[in-house]
Amino acid sequence: MKIKLINPNTTARMTETMAICARAVAGAGTEVYAATSSMGPPSIEGWYDESLALPGLLAEVAAGEREGMDGYVIACFGDPGLFAARELARGPVIGIAEAAMHAASVIAPSFAVVTTLARTTGMAWHLAERYGMTRFCRNVRATDVAVLDLDRPGSAARRLIADECRRALEDDGADAIVLGCAGMADLARAIEDEIGVPVVEGVTAALKWVEALAGLGLATAKRGEYARPLAKRYDGPLADFSPRDA
Amino acid sequence: MKIKLINPNTTARMTETMAICARAVAGAGTEVYAATSSMGPPSIEGWYDESLALPGLLAEVAAGEREGMDGYVIACFGDPGLFAARELARGPVIGIAEAAMHAASVIAPSFAVVTTLARTTGMAWHLAERYGMTRFCRNVRATDVAVLDLDRPGSAARRLIADECRRALEDDGADAIVLGCAGMADLARAIEDEIGVPVVEGVTAALKWVEALAGLGLATAKRGEYARPLAKRYDGPLADFSPRDA
Amino acid sequence: MKIKLINPNTTARMTETMAICARAVAGAGTEVYAATSSMGPPSIEGWYDESLALPGLLAEVAAGEREGMDGYVIACFGDPGLFAARELARGPVIGIAEAAMHAASVIAPSFAVVTTLARTTGMAWHLAERYGMTRFCRNVRATDVAVLDLDRPGSAARRLIADECRRALEDDGADAIVLGCAGMADLARAIEDEIGVPVVEGVTAALKWVEALAGLGLATAKRGEYARPLAKRYDGPLADFSPRDA
Amino acid sequence: MKIKLINPNTTARMTETMAICARAVAGAGTEVYAATSSMGPPSIEGWYDESLALPGLLAEVAAGEREGMDGYVIACFGDPGLFAARELARGPVIGIAEAAMHAASVIAPSFAVVTTLARTTGMAWHLAERYGMTRFCRNVRATDVAVLDLDRPGSAARRLIADECRRALEDDGADAIVLGCAGMADLARAIEDEIGVPVVEGVTAALKWVEALAGLGLATAKRGEYARPLAKRYDGPLADFSPRDA
Amino acid sequence: MKIKLINPNTTARMTETMAICARAVAGAGTEVYAATSSMGPPSIEGWYDESLALPGLLAEVAAGEREGMDGYVIACFGDPGLFAARELARGPVIGIAEAAMHAASVIAPSFAVVTTLARTTGMAWHLAERYGMTRFCRNVRATDVAVLDLDRPGSAARRLIADECRRALEDDGADAIVLGCAGMADLARAIEDEIGVPVVEGVTAALKWVEALAGLGLATAKRGEYARPLAKRYDGPLADFSPRDA
Amino acid sequence: MKIKLINPNTTARMTETMAICARAVAGAGTEVYAATSSMGPPSIEGWYDESLALPGLLAEVAAGEREGMDGYVIACFGDPGLFAARELARGPVIGIAEAAMHAASVIAPSFAVVTTLARTTGMAWHLAERYGMTRFCRNVRATDVAVLDLDRPGSAARRLIADECRRALEDDGADAIVLGCAGMADLARAIEDEIGVPVVEGVTAALKWVEALAGLGLATAKRGEYARPLAKRYDGPLADFSPRDA
Repeated sequence: MKIKLINPNTTARMTETMAICARAVAGAGTEVYAATSSMGPPSIEGWYDESLALPGLLAEVAAGEREGMDGYVIACFGDPGLFAARELARGPVIGIAEAAMHAASVIAPSFAVVTTLARTTGMAWHLAERYGMTRFCRNVRATDVAVLDLDRPGSAARRLIADECRRALEDDGADAIVLGCAGMADLARAIEDEIGVPVVEGVTAALKWVEALAGLGLATAKRGEYARPLAKRYDGPLADFSPRDA
Repeated sequence: MKIKLINPNTTARMTETMAICARAVAGAGTEVYAATSSMGPPSIEGWYDESLALPGLLAEVAAGEREGMDGYVIACFGDPGLFAARELARGPVIGIAEAAMHAASVIAPSFAVVTTLARTTGMAWHLAERYGMTRFCRNVRATDVAVLDLDRPGSAARRLIADECRRALEDDGADAIVLGCAGMADLARAIEDEIGVPVVEGVTAALKWVEALAGLGLATAKRGEYARPLAKRYDGPLADFSPRDA
Repeated sequence: MKIKLINPNTTARMTETMAICARAVAGAGTEVYAATSSMGPPSIEGWYDESLALPGLLAEVAAGEREGMDGYVIACFGDPGLFAARELARGPVIGIAEAAMHAASVIAPSFAVVTTLARTTGMAWHLAERYGMTRFCRNVRATDVAVLDLDRPGSAARRLIADECRRALEDDGADAIVLGCAGMADLARAIEDEIGVPVVEGVTAALKWVEALAGLGLATAKRGEYARPLAKRYDGPLADFSPRDA
Repeated sequence: MKIKLINPNTTARMTETMAICARAVAGAGTEVYAATSSMGPPSIEGWYDESLALPGLLAEVAAGEREGMDGYVIACFGDPGLFAARELARGPVIGIAEAAMHAASVIAPSFAVVTTLARTTGMAWHLAERYGMTRFCRNVRATDVAVLDLDRPGSAARRLIADECRRALEDDGADAIVLGCAGMADLARAIEDEIGVPVVEGVTAALKWVEALAGLGLATAKRGEYARPLAKRYDGPLADFSPRDA
Repeated sequence: MKIKLINPNTTARMTETMAICARAVAGAGTEVYAATSSMGPPSIEGWYDESLALPGLLAEVAAGEREGMDGYVIACFGDPGLFAARELARGPVIGIAEAAMHAASVIAPSFAVVTTLARTTGMAWHLAERYGMTRFCRNVRATDVAVLDLDRPGSAARRLIADECRRALEDDGADAIVLGCAGMADLARAIEDEIGVPVVEGVTAALKWVEALAGLGLATAKRGEYARPLAKRYDGPLADFSPRDA
Repeated sequence: MKIKLINPNTTARMTETMAICARAVAGAGTEVYAATSSMGPPSIEGWYDESLALPGLLAEVAAGEREGMDGYVIACFGDPGLFAARELARGPVIGIAEAAMHAASVIAPSFAVVTTLARTTGMAWHLAERYGMTRFCRNVRATDVAVLDLDRPGSAARRLIADECRRALEDDGADAIVLGCAGMADLARAIEDEIGVPVVEGVTAALKWVEALAGLGLATAKRGEYARPLAKRYDGPLADFSPRDA
């Protein structure tokens, strides 16, 4: 089975870390293809960044279809372009926020999201609503660590994140934690050990879930909203993105 | 990895069919242990049946903990005893309605449930709400086929179910189907081929999801609502169920 | 009019206290039949306890039908087996959480529930949702008094409960209190006097409401979800619970 | 116990019918005081009518407080002035829509409202939402019978209402009926016999519920939103309504 | 274009302040007709006050129709009689809470309402729900300044309001403020300058929105719930309010 | 006042029609600047099209800030890039679906959306939810007219749309219509005349509302989610979109 893990920002070292995490949990027959977007923002920290990350992300999904991928992970906690990617893909496409929230909701009565910048907490609430997860989500908490500082040597990031997780348990009554950034993929187990409740990380959760869905033979519904884009000719610098008939 | 598939009714031939379906999708390292409840109703078709199915179900979960199970599938579409089972289990416990609804919600914009008796449609709506899935669920439709007639030789069950699925697509605008009974596990692929949209079946979906969660090292949160039952001495014929300190 | 008050746990002295409270408010023509479950947990403090309380509870409802009861009160704040009991009963069946929340919602713009153990607060929220009462419920607060300590001589329970009620008024903006445990039935008036807002207690509220509904000639709807259980033969130690045709 | 039943429209013959229905179900110690509003609309069929019914209604509540009433029924299905009346009253105040919806929600999994004019169906939905009852309410159906035609000799009203009830059972999947007009108080039992599911009528339901609440010693919360109106001097023709200090 | 601004309380100096604010933002061709209710409460601080403000308000709308008004602003934050007024009016009728909440919801991800007395916060929440604005409304905060003290010389009102606004930003995470009383109309700009986030005031917001809607040629829908009141004869002192055929 | 109307698709003749409609309702002091996106899809009929329309749209907003625009209308019914545009803009930014739904919700108790292709109805429901408008929206109906066929000479579009509007009134009980495509801007008045209920069209509604908000001096909140994008260097062909410090 071939699963493509797409980092929709352009920072290759984040892709590498995520690929290592994903491969560590992948099943015997699963090949993880990790791709870094070739254009747009190096980190996604708001709606504008997210909007400009979409062309690069969708180019990777379109390429993935030509490469025969069986499914996709969108590896940014805003799950950018999820529905658009589903229009392109035959197999399942899962966002890491979606996977993490769903997983947390079945192993704990409630969870809190711990993320990077305060300006992105609204985006996480939008996703929780879109996936039906608001009833499980006690809070979305920001650490005000920038995405690209997460793995800076000497960064206090892990400490700040663990502290915020503890506040989520105590002040919000959460029973589990969802880490709210793809850049936190390699921190989950250490923080879980430290705080003593399940810590769900989306990159690995999404990889396993795509594996499960593809293993079930389930594909994206091609009736209605996720049908292939209608063939038409796009204009200007984006002409290469023009959808063609299948 | 050892996953226990528990049929909470006492009809062994349903367990056998489900075990075959589950094993057909299980990963290389997964052992599926299929168990049939040793007491209570032979089919679950209402709240009363479900209530009396709980002791038998929970006995199997308790036994499973002694047997070293890594996770559980509750194989009845009402997901009976799900939260109680989570109190007992260390690993993940997934209900087949829960797994099927979650899976359908990530491969299609919406789904409809097609189930057995009209009297159980309210139960399915309760579950959709509990899992945050009402926003995806267009309708819950009954075929008025009794559970134990599903695999009766010569039964019109498959025809009736496929017809109801088609009505869900046309009248409700659903984009995928969730089969609403464990007894329909072996019908999914044939109906999918017939109606041309994804048909999600919960036994296999739950098996794969428990596999995924256990593969991620995620366990049930033991803080709060899913903590182990408090040790106390039960009375009368149910004394054997008394929770003990871990 | 004959109303059966069923304590679904096996602790007879709690039944006695509740019966005294219920009889103190019962109308002239009402006979209160108080019954203690003959099997299962001595107190209900979680989903597992609740599941194992169901056979004992439902046995009392089934007996009640043979005894000609006009209605039932399920006297545990988790309202265990409410829908299953409605399948068995001809007359109305009311849970004490249901009665207390409904009553509080018509005499005050909002209420808070004050209950025993933190692990049960999620159960109270489930009930609030099931009854449409989340819009009135400001908070569910735990005192961490165990159910069976409520009436222990010298217990600080009443003090702890009254303090938590005050916090609900001040911190949550609640305008009334719902006591969240059948074992608090005899504390309501004293706490109300102390804190100066309405304190609603479910055992008495449910008794009066069953009386009212039965007095109106209203019975449980036997169409659909609350229809009598289908006749079938249960297996093993629970065979005696097999539903028979009416 | 003294309960005041207030008809907020000025049609005395409707009050008389309602008083007969209410007294037929009242408990031994209950005196029903039936009052007809002395000003405003003879029937309430929209928001404007309802607005102009409020002074007459509130005058009756204010008088009731001087007369020592223990509780009030607001006997119009729009429950006009319910919150304002609660500011005035010491005892409980219940609207007939509120009582009927609450009662229907505990004896059936779902109900439909059958009311008079189509223009008032939105008002019934507003009430269902305000009371948390939307989850139980399958539909609000109009018969387009005018309020004052309900008891016209030779009227087809009862036939039209019963037919609409049947459609609610068949097309909406409702399991019980709520009659949506005070003028239907005397039709409930006959229609119930005819259609074979519980038919809940608000005048009697509200009377019994006020009786129950007052019997429990529960009064309207005087903290917050339902506190007595602040003393101030009203101007013009409404000066007599000026609230005074208690 | 003729827009009538109706103050539903009887305090003329509040009307004058509001008229000045409204005229300051009105477009070139807009005439603002400011009217003070001729009967009822001098300030609206609860449901009872609001109920008795309705006749005076509706008399002004009825007069407005005879005067050829193109639209109406109901200038009290409880938006009293909004739906009843829409039954009377041909043109658009907007409440100031409605206008302010809608405006705040399109310039900020969330807002908090800062109002006068604590007893009215529930009323603001009712409106937020009625308009679909709960998802944007982080909190409703009371300053416990009485309506008629807002413009008392030497009053600390502005200081108290600005302080409460700051708490809304810090403690509730609101991104904008809605001032919750018509009497605060002239404070908005000064507080906005002070706290540095948008402060929306309803009188001006409603005036501009009625202007916009009327400029679009949009009128109140006369189908269904907002159809003209049915002609009938009212009784007693309110006979003058009897609706007549158009 | 300078308002920029941005057509996020590349079809200039749609922009021209919209500009004519917008200028016809604009106030005396308002200059309408109409812009057509310079890159991406010629029509937006799904999530993929919408994603690729974002760069062109955001380029126009960024240019608008340099041009001193006081506000923006996003003139496509999917309201693409609304939140991202708000990060860029100082003044108000309104989507045409947002404006139309808000306007419809204040002149009618309910509305239905009548749009182009069935595959986009889910997008309209997403918007209704995001704006709090689901409670007013009875249905979203597709005509299966393609966007670019709307103004094709001899097209049956207007007939098909009017017919669908009538079905919305009769079958869904809607009281007003929202036209669900920018390409329908010039049809609103004719259809309104034909069907006799208010027909709200978003381009003009949004123009008037931006005018109103800007006239009130209200700007987009720059605290939190709508703060300016963080300065960073974008990669590849999208480098020109890199946000810079203000």
